[in-house]
Amino acid sequence: MPLSGPIVLTDNRYGKAENRVVRFVKENARHEIRDVNVSTTLRGDFAAAYTDGDQRHVLPTDTQKHMAFVFAKRPGLDTIEDYALGLARHFVDTVEPVSSARIDVESYGWQRVSIDGVEHEHTWVRSGPEVRTAAVTVSGDGAWVIGGIKDLVLLKSTGSEFAGFLTDEYTTLAPTRDRVLATALVAQWRFAEHSGFEWDEVYAGVRATLLELFAQTYSKAMQQTLYAMGTAVLERFPMLAEIRLEAPNKHHFGYDLAQFDILNADEVFWAADRPYGSIHATLARADAPGAGIAWQP
Amino acid sequence: MPLSGPIVLTDNRYGKAENRVVRFVKENARHEIRDVNVSTTLRGDFAAAYTDGDQRHVLPTDTQKHMAFVFAKRPGLDTIEDYALGLARHFVDTVEPVSSARIDVESYGWQRVSIDGVEHEHTWVRSGPEVRTAAVTVSGDGAWVIGGIKDLVLLKSTGSEFAGFLTDEYTTLAPTRDRVLATALVAQWRFAEHSGFEWDEVYAGVRATLLELFAQTYSKAMQQTLYAMGTAVLERFPMLAEIRLEAPNKHHFGYDLAQFDILNADEVFWAADRPYGSIHATLARADAPGAGIAWQP
Amino acid sequence: MPLSGPIVLTDNRYGKAENRVVRFVKENARHEIRDVNVSTTLRGDFAAAYTDGDQRHVLPTDTQKHMAFVFAKRPGLDTIEDYALGLARHFVDTVEPVSSARIDVESYGWQRVSIDGVEHEHTWVRSGPEVRTAAVTVSGDGAWVIGGIKDLVLLKSTGSEFAGFLTDEYTTLAPTRDRVLATALVAQWRFAEHSGFEWDEVYAGVRATLLELFAQTYSKAMQQTLYAMGTAVLERFPMLAEIRLEAPNKHHFGYDLAQFDILNADEVFWAADRPYGSIHATLARADAPGAGIAWQP
Amino acid sequence: MPLSGPIVLTDNRYGKAENRVVRFVKENARHEIRDVNVSTTLRGDFAAAYTDGDQRHVLPTDTQKHMAFVFAKRPGLDTIEDYALGLARHFVDTVEPVSSARIDVESYGWQRVSIDGVEHEHTWVRSGPEVRTAAVTVSGDGAWVIGGIKDLVLLKSTGSEFAGFLTDEYTTLAPTRDRVLATALVAQWRFAEHSGFEWDEVYAGVRATLLELFAQTYSKAMQQTLYAMGTAVLERFPMLAEIRLEAPNKHHFGYDLAQFDILNADEVFWAADRPYGSIHATLARADAPGAGIAWQP
Repeated sequence: MPLSGPIVLTDNRYGKAENRVVRFVKENARHEIRDVNVSTTLRGDFAAAYTDGDQRHVLPTDTQKHMAFVFAKRPGLDTIEDYALGLARHFVDTVEPVSSARIDVESYGWQRVSIDGVEHEHTWVRSGPEVRTAAVTVSGDGAWVIGGIKDLVLLKSTGSEFAGFLTDEYTTLAPTRDRVLATALVAQWRFAEHSGFEWDEVYAGVRATLLELFAQTYSKAMQQTLYAMGTAVLERFPMLAEIRLEAPNKHHFGYDLAQFDILNADEVFWAADRPYGSIHATLARADAPGAGIAWQP
Repeated sequence: MPLSGPIVLTDNRYGKAENRVVRFVKENARHEIRDVNVSTTLRGDFAAAYTDGDQRHVLPTDTQKHMAFVFAKRPGLDTIEDYALGLARHFVDTVEPVSSARIDVESYGWQRVSIDGVEHEHTWVRSGPEVRTAAVTVSGDGAWVIGGIKDLVLLKSTGSEFAGFLTDEYTTLAPTRDRVLATALVAQWRFAEHSGFEWDEVYAGVRATLLELFAQTYSKAMQQTLYAMGTAVLERFPMLAEIRLEAPNKHHFGYDLAQFDILNADEVFWAADRPYGSIHATLARADAPGAGIAWQP
Repeated sequence: MPLSGPIVLTDNRYGKAENRVVRFVKENARHEIRDVNVSTTLRGDFAAAYTDGDQRHVLPTDTQKHMAFVFAKRPGLDTIEDYALGLARHFVDTVEPVSSARIDVESYGWQRVSIDGVEHEHTWVRSGPEVRTAAVTVSGDGAWVIGGIKDLVLLKSTGSEFAGFLTDEYTTLAPTRDRVLATALVAQWRFAEHSGFEWDEVYAGVRATLLELFAQTYSKAMQQTLYAMGTAVLERFPMLAEIRLEAPNKHHFGYDLAQFDILNADEVFWAADRPYGSIHATLARADAPGAGIAWQP
Repeated sequence: MPLSGPIVLTDNRYGKAENRVVRFVKENARHEIRDVNVSTTLRGDFAAAYTDGDQRHVLPTDTQKHMAFVFAKRPGLDTIEDYALGLARHFVDTVEPVSSARIDVESYGWQRVSIDGVEHEHTWVRSGPEVRTAAVTVSGDGAWVIGGIKDLVLLKSTGSEFAGFLTDEYTTLAPTRDRVLATALVAQWRFAEHSGFEWDEVYAGVRATLLELFAQTYSKAMQQTLYAMGTAVLERFPMLAEIRLEAPNKHHFGYDLAQFDILNADEVFWAADRPYGSIHATLARADAPGAGIAWQP
């Protein structure tokens, strides 16, 4: 049945992606560093730019870039959440056609260089592959803050099994009572409100909780581990409405040394690249306020 | 206001990502190649795996991997859309707890090696960076097919301007009547129905249309170009309900040679990496059937 | 035996890496594009910058960047080899402390967009993952030109075996008389002289020869295929002194469908990522002039 | 002058690249982890494989892969240097045609998860981006060990200048007395002998020295910083013959906030991707033994 109705622009957005902003605080000899990757996304009354090439409502992405740097200066980057809230509000409040603004921030970790146990005042070494994230949306109706972490690579060498699963005629996997469990976790937690919190403390607490539960949960499957992690986070942090967890199951296969008459007592593994399992879970408080446009990309 | 309600598993899914399947057809001396990356995602009655570690409803992702290869053998990979429909239906029809299955396919391009104008029967060279994609979802209620292309890198050296835009006190960008326009396009088009089409013909036609409109539209902004591309695709292909376009604006900055008393008549540019503009547009037929769960990841 | 002799700076070099230069020729309505990534490396009398922080001999890498763009304007980028020769000579001839300069160029392929068989005058689509390369070195003693190609991904579905190999007590690989042979070739060919050639013609000819020999050589091993490719290139292009070939053996493993009572007649394969074989070969004419510092990085 | 001499195979090598070996030590409840990427390269009497497709001297790369895992079991991966020495010797001693073997190892860092200050016995979180490396070569004539580190990302917010440099008519860079200095260091140090050392202690000491000198050297240029780092390493570690340092100069440009009447007192920077400076230095002890084939790839 061929369609013949009019063609409509149903959704649109635009912004400047991946502004690499580095902000130092140099109030005294002991400097501080904030190293972030900032993306701006605006929604609003921009249809004419698409349909007619009319730019009168379009604030250049170049200007959005400027603002990512301006806001890094003032109010500054004390926390990425407040920085993003301020930046998003700026666009909504001062740019007439903008109805909502979303700011995505990745924050890279740096550790102070220590020399003979003394921290250096202005030199750092990059830590992590892990990256802290924030996704903040502001509209005329409200504001939403999503904290997060990604590329948090975790591994446990025991305390994980996978057995008792559904089988069909194509299932060849043997159940196992002891395996390696490894992932590169992505977690995002939505705050019930958008102010009144110590963002950095919540971040540190959620991160510690994720690590603790990954370590201490005897895992019958990655699904169970994710659920335990998510539940603990929501229980311990009552200001959080929801948490989303994505976990690739990074397979480690025991290497067959028996073919050489060598015993491999779960000691030697091959870390595979692809394919990998992909497990997702979202947990929420039943009494949580609605997410509104918080998850809109 | 701290939350205290019960914690609920609100969404979950799992599957096997990035199965790298290569399928040859060797019915005669002239072989054919299909080179794809297949990801499976299942939704259904899996909550007990999360809450209790009970795997009785969980078909291993290892089995899902097997099926990606089995279906490459039969019915085969004539088109990635039909392959994905078959694979998704298999999970929905034969695995009791599965309520819906999504199959994502990336298909890599290969060109036959030519020697003195004669195509070789069993040797190819990779083409592209561009990649053809399909995202197919099947549930008890229906089936949805989304075709697509990504990493389609396009550039025009003239016929593009950006002027007449909104300015504020932070706007320093000068309007330009002649600039380089470049992008790495991602496009996804949703079919109104899930059968009865020549998938490969539609793909070739949509790709050609995207290229033609990018080339021939005098661009007052990337937004306008995307709209022109999307409109033409929907007009020419009445079996399509909707098209989503994402276009990073890959900036090319004219290099300042005037500082060396050299005229740069829009000839020498620096191709920047980051930041980049990021433009999104979705167009749909007003009489299109609803998307259902087609866009659910 | 602890060492106690004086510490000496034995080698040093510096430059500006990855200048992303795009050059258009707009002499008429039909534009031309050259899209390159240029890296400069200088050697010379720079020791004091290392030992004493004395910059008086150090031409800033910022200036080197300027020159990569200036030379793209004039003499221009007709061929990357002549461009690189000119740029290298500039540094050697005009910057007193420079004893030798090396210019590395990657050149990205673009194909003109065709609409109804007619090539568009100013719009292109990126082709390849394959990249053309040049590495040119100029010193007071001479000049050396190395042409090349990389990321040339090749695959043949038959005409390749691997059997009769050395075995030891740890060898479990079964010989095979029919396998998939695939690689991402890197090839670099050194010219015996540095002028008098049609660089583009040689490039096209060498590329065609590499493809032809990969396709038409019945392969008893990747080693043999590389040797056949290298020999043919040197035989057909008597201006070349030497060719270096690197070929990851991108393994494709037949998927075990027999476990499901399905015949897999070398039709369905799993394309593995890691580990991969890694094969290298260098071939040279016995009467070739010495390489001098051509291969110095 | 076209060449017509016979074509000769002048160099060749082969091996298995990127074996991802993970080794646990589980002697008691507190497990240990070694996570490495191992590449093997063999040289020897393999010409017939190239010239005639004769595999009789070719040990399959599949067997080399097996050995990377077998040696991870016994003698094990206590240190990557001894592991690589053992693996290389195995190939030289037991595979007749092999004249020399090179083993490259990348070792990924893992930190034990801590819960309330107590280290978990079998759970880790990935640290780094930094990677420890070893490159070991064994032949009938001797053995060479090169330790190393890569992706060591360092940054200092002051204590770095760049001034007094050479200028020509194309130099526009302004001298600066205070800038950000940042790099992703690659360092490789060659041991004078191949046994008798505490590899892990030397590694920790060299790493600490590199960090200390980067931090404490007032830098007149990256060159000077590298020289200071290299000198200190050789002075403190008399068992080292040579050190090679590669340092991309990761540019941080002060963002122009003055255009908005905002003072940017070296607080807000844009971290650029490309182009970047590229600085290399090699330092050696004058009385160091020759490198032999240690640096052969």
